[in-house]
Amino acid sequence: MPIVDINCDMGESFGTYAKGRDEEILKYVTSANIACGFHAGDPSIMRKTVKLAVENNTGIGAHPGFPDLAGFGRRKMDVTPEEAYDLVVYQVGALNGFVKAEGQYLQHVKPHGALFNMAAQDRKLADAIAQAVYDVDPELILFGLAGSELVQAGRHAGLRTASEVFSDRTYQQDGSLTSRRDSNALITDHHAAVQQVIRMIKENKVTSLQNVDVEIEPQTICIHGDGESAVEFAAYISKALKEADIEVSKISSFL
Amino acid sequence: MPIVDINCDMGESFGTYAKGRDEEILKYVTSANIACGFHAGDPSIMRKTVKLAVENNTGIGAHPGFPDLAGFGRRKMDVTPEEAYDLVVYQVGALNGFVKAEGQYLQHVKPHGALFNMAAQDRKLADAIAQAVYDVDPELILFGLAGSELVQAGRHAGLRTASEVFSDRTYQQDGSLTSRRDSNALITDHHAAVQQVIRMIKENKVTSLQNVDVEIEPQTICIHGDGESAVEFAAYISKALKEADIEVSKISSFL
Amino acid sequence: MPIVDINCDMGESFGTYAKGRDEEILKYVTSANIACGFHAGDPSIMRKTVKLAVENNTGIGAHPGFPDLAGFGRRKMDVTPEEAYDLVVYQVGALNGFVKAEGQYLQHVKPHGALFNMAAQDRKLADAIAQAVYDVDPELILFGLAGSELVQAGRHAGLRTASEVFSDRTYQQDGSLTSRRDSNALITDHHAAVQQVIRMIKENKVTSLQNVDVEIEPQTICIHGDGESAVEFAAYISKALKEADIEVSKISSFL
Amino acid sequence: MPIVDINCDMGESFGTYAKGRDEEILKYVTSANIACGFHAGDPSIMRKTVKLAVENNTGIGAHPGFPDLAGFGRRKMDVTPEEAYDLVVYQVGALNGFVKAEGQYLQHVKPHGALFNMAAQDRKLADAIAQAVYDVDPELILFGLAGSELVQAGRHAGLRTASEVFSDRTYQQDGSLTSRRDSNALITDHHAAVQQVIRMIKENKVTSLQNVDVEIEPQTICIHGDGESAVEFAAYISKALKEADIEVSKISSFL
Repeated sequence: MPIVDINCDMGESFGTYAKGRDEEILKYVTSANIACGFHAGDPSIMRKTVKLAVENNTGIGAHPGFPDLAGFGRRKMDVTPEEAYDLVVYQVGALNGFVKAEGQYLQHVKPHGALFNMAAQDRKLADAIAQAVYDVDPELILFGLAGSELVQAGRHAGLRTASEVFSDRTYQQDGSLTSRRDSNALITDHHAAVQQVIRMIKENKVTSLQNVDVEIEPQTICIHGDGESAVEFAAYISKALKEADIEVSKISSFL
Repeated sequence: MPIVDINCDMGESFGTYAKGRDEEILKYVTSANIACGFHAGDPSIMRKTVKLAVENNTGIGAHPGFPDLAGFGRRKMDVTPEEAYDLVVYQVGALNGFVKAEGQYLQHVKPHGALFNMAAQDRKLADAIAQAVYDVDPELILFGLAGSELVQAGRHAGLRTASEVFSDRTYQQDGSLTSRRDSNALITDHHAAVQQVIRMIKENKVTSLQNVDVEIEPQTICIHGDGESAVEFAAYISKALKEADIEVSKISSFL
Repeated sequence: MPIVDINCDMGESFGTYAKGRDEEILKYVTSANIACGFHAGDPSIMRKTVKLAVENNTGIGAHPGFPDLAGFGRRKMDVTPEEAYDLVVYQVGALNGFVKAEGQYLQHVKPHGALFNMAAQDRKLADAIAQAVYDVDPELILFGLAGSELVQAGRHAGLRTASEVFSDRTYQQDGSLTSRRDSNALITDHHAAVQQVIRMIKENKVTSLQNVDVEIEPQTICIHGDGESAVEFAAYISKALKEADIEVSKISSFL
Repeated sequence: MPIVDINCDMGESFGTYAKGRDEEILKYVTSANIACGFHAGDPSIMRKTVKLAVENNTGIGAHPGFPDLAGFGRRKMDVTPEEAYDLVVYQVGALNGFVKAEGQYLQHVKPHGALFNMAAQDRKLADAIAQAVYDVDPELILFGLAGSELVQAGRHAGLRTASEVFSDRTYQQDGSLTSRRDSNALITDHHAAVQQVIRMIKENKVTSLQNVDVEIEPQTICIHGDGESAVEFAAYISKALKEADIEVSKISSFL
C-alpha cells in the first residue's frame, strides 16, 4: 500500500497578529513546518505551535526563512551560502529549544519562501542549507521540491530527504513548477488537484502543461493552512487519499 | 586549593558593527557568555564566537537578553514570566544549534543586562527563566548574582547554579551591589578589585561600603570584555589569582 | 451646539498581517491615529492608510509607539525622556512623509499603548513627548488622556491639546480610568457607554465607580477599530451623538 | 572657477555600536548622507548627526536603505518599485523630522548600498525612488551615480540631480564603475585618486581601465567616513582641490 506524508506551514502568527487556522488543519497534517521567528512566528507562538503539534502527534519540523517579517520571507535576499548556513543553524536550533522543552524530537527541516525557491535552483545555497541541517543533527530529514538542487544537496550531505509535491500547482515538462506569474499556475479545482496527487503517488507521473508525462516520486505533499478553503481542502485530500488506498503518515514513520 | 571560574560576555558584535576584543580576552576567560541575537550578536557572529570558545577550551554559555538591540538589552521591559520563559528557550536553543554544529556541549546560561537585573529581584521572573533553562536541558548550569532570587530559583528548579561576583563593583551591607547611580559603585583600581575577589574566595567575605563584612561565596567572577583596559585587567586578575594559589577553571570542571 | 471629535487607531496591519477594519470604521471616525512602523504598521500600510484617511476627509494623526512589534507597543520599556523624544520625532516625521506625499497636512499626534499610559503619569516623559511634537511642528495637536500629565505637558510646551475620553471604560473618583485588571473596568453595554459620553459632553461630568461625579471636559472620544462589534459600535455612537444634538467633527475644525 | 560638492555617509552608528569618525570628517564634507534607521542609524543617532551637520554648516541629506541592519543594507533585496517608493518616503520623512526639529531644511537624498546600486541600473526602481523624493518635497536634490538610471529618473521626475563620482574607484570604458570583485577596482594611492577627480572636474574626462577616455561631469564626490585613513584622505582631497583652484561647496549652493 503506497504511503505519503502531508505537510503544512504552521505557527505563522506573530505577536498579536493571527495567521492560519493551525488547530483545525493539524487534524489532517502529518508533518508541521513551524516558523522560527525570522519570516514569521515568535518565541511564544513557537512554544504554542510545538505543543499543538505534539497533541496531534504530528511530525515537527523547523521552517527557517529570511529575516524579513515585513515581506513574510518571500522576497529574495542576496545572502552568501555562509550566511544561509548561519540562518538555518540559528533557526533550527531555536525551534529545537521548544521541541526539547516538550521532551520531543525534531523530525525535519523545510526552508521557507524565497529561501526554499532559491535553494531549489542554486546548488551552493542548497549545499550550505543541507550542511547546516546535518551539522545540527544528521538524523533530521530535509524537505525539498521534488527534483530540486536542495534534495540533491541533502542526499550529498548524508541526510535523508523528502521530495515534496504541490497538489494545487501545475508542472512544466522539465518537472519544474509553472511560475505563479502564469495564469495557469494554480489548480483551483479540488478534485483535479487530488487526482494529480494520486497519480503522482500511484504511477509516479504527472501530466505537464505541455501534455507530456513527467516522472515524479512524491514523499510529502504540501498543503496550505491559510486561505478560505484551506481546512475544507485538507479534509478533502485526506479523505480522498485514504479512499484511494493510500496511507497518510508522518514522513519519519516510513522514510 | 580554592577554585573559581572567570566569565565574560562575548560575541556582542552585530553585522558590520564590532564590539569587544573577544580573541584577546578569551585567553583569560574560562566561561564565555555568548549573545544570542536579541540584545546583541547575530547568527554569523554566534558561529564565529562558539568556534573561538572551542579553540580556547572555554566553557560555552548562552547569554539571552531582551529583544532590544538599540538599547543593548539594558532597558527594562515589562514582560510576563511566560514571555521571559519563551525568550530564554528560544535564545538558548539558537545558540545550542551552533554548539551542536561544532560537536560541543553547552555549559551554562547567564541572562543579560536588564533581564539579569530584574531576575535578581523578581522571583516569578527568576522562576520562569530557571524553568526555561531546565526544560531545554537539566544539565545546564545557571549563572546568577550571588544571593539573588535567580540563584534561588535555579536551585529550586533542580539546576546546578553558579554564584557570580563582580570584581569591579562595591557591595552594600545587605549583600547587594551598590547602584551604578552612586559615585562609589565602581572599583577602578585593579589591585583593590583583585584583593576584594581574593578575600571573597578565601574568606567568603566582602567588606561593604558600610564597613560591615558580608558573607559571599563566589563560584564565578564576571569580568568585562570591552573598555580600554579590559584585556589588561583580565591578564592581571588571572595572574594574581594564580599567585594567590587560587585555581582558575571552567565552572563545569568543579561544580 | 456641543461638538466633539471621534478618534480611532488605524493602520495597525503589518506586512501580510491584517488587523482592524479600517475602511469600514473610517466612515464614523473624524481623526485617525496612524501607526508609524514601531509597534505596528509598515511603510506600505502607512501610505495606504493615509490615502484612506484623505478619501474620508478624516484628520490625520501620527500614533508613535515603542519599538516592540511583538508586544504591539503595550509593554512598558524603561526609556529615558531623551529616547522618547527621539522615538516621537522619528515616527511623526516618517508619517509626515506620507502625508506630504499626498499633499496633505498632519493634524495631530497621539502616543500609543504603554508610551501613552506612561506619559499620562510621568511628567518628564510627557514633557519630552510634547517637546518632540512641538519641535517637529508647533501647529500639531497633542492628544492625551483627559486630566493627564501629557495634556499638561502639551499646554506647557505651547501646543494645542485634545483631552481624550473613553466611551467604554469606567472612571475612578480621582478622574483616572479604572485599571483593566479590575473586573468592572469595561462598559460593554453600548447604550450605557454612549450615555456616559453624552453626559461628559453636555454636563462635563462622569459618574465614577465610587458613585461620585467627576468633572471632565472631553474634546475627543476614543473608539476601537478591532473587536467583533467595533464597526457596529462606531455606527451606533456616531448616530446617537447626532440624535443628542452633538456635532461630530475633526478636532482641527473646532479647537 | 569650477565648483564641486564632497559628500560622505554619516550617522551609521546604531545604539551602543559606534561606526565612523563623523565629527572629524565633517570638517571636510559639504554634504552629509545621514542613515535613517533601516540599514544603520537609530533615532538618537539621527538627532545627534543632524546637529553635528548643522554645526558644521554641512548640507543635510537622507540616506535611505534596505531594512537590513545585519547586512548593513548591502544585500540586494527583491523589492517591488512600490515597496521602494514606500521605504524612501518613510526614511526621508523620518530624517526630515529631526531636520525640522533643528529648524533646518533637508537638502538632498542619496539611496544607500544595494538600493543605490540596483537603482543605478533598474529604471523602474529608479523611477519609484525619484517619485518618492519628489512627492515628499520637489525641492530636494537626488544624488545618483554619474550616468546612471537614477540620475535620469530624477530628471524625468522633475528633480534637480547631482551626478556623483568616486575618487577611489576605477572606471570602465562604458562609464560604469569597475566591479569590486576585480582586483583593480580600487585606487588606493591618494595622489592618483585625487588626480582622477581633478581631471573629471576640469576636463570632464576619466581614463578608463581600457585606456579610453570617458566623458563624465561630476557635481559631487563621494568619500568614505570609515576606514583607517578616511580622515587623512578627506583632509588631503579637500586641500588638493583648493590648490587646483576648484571650489568645494555644498551642492545646494551652486546647482
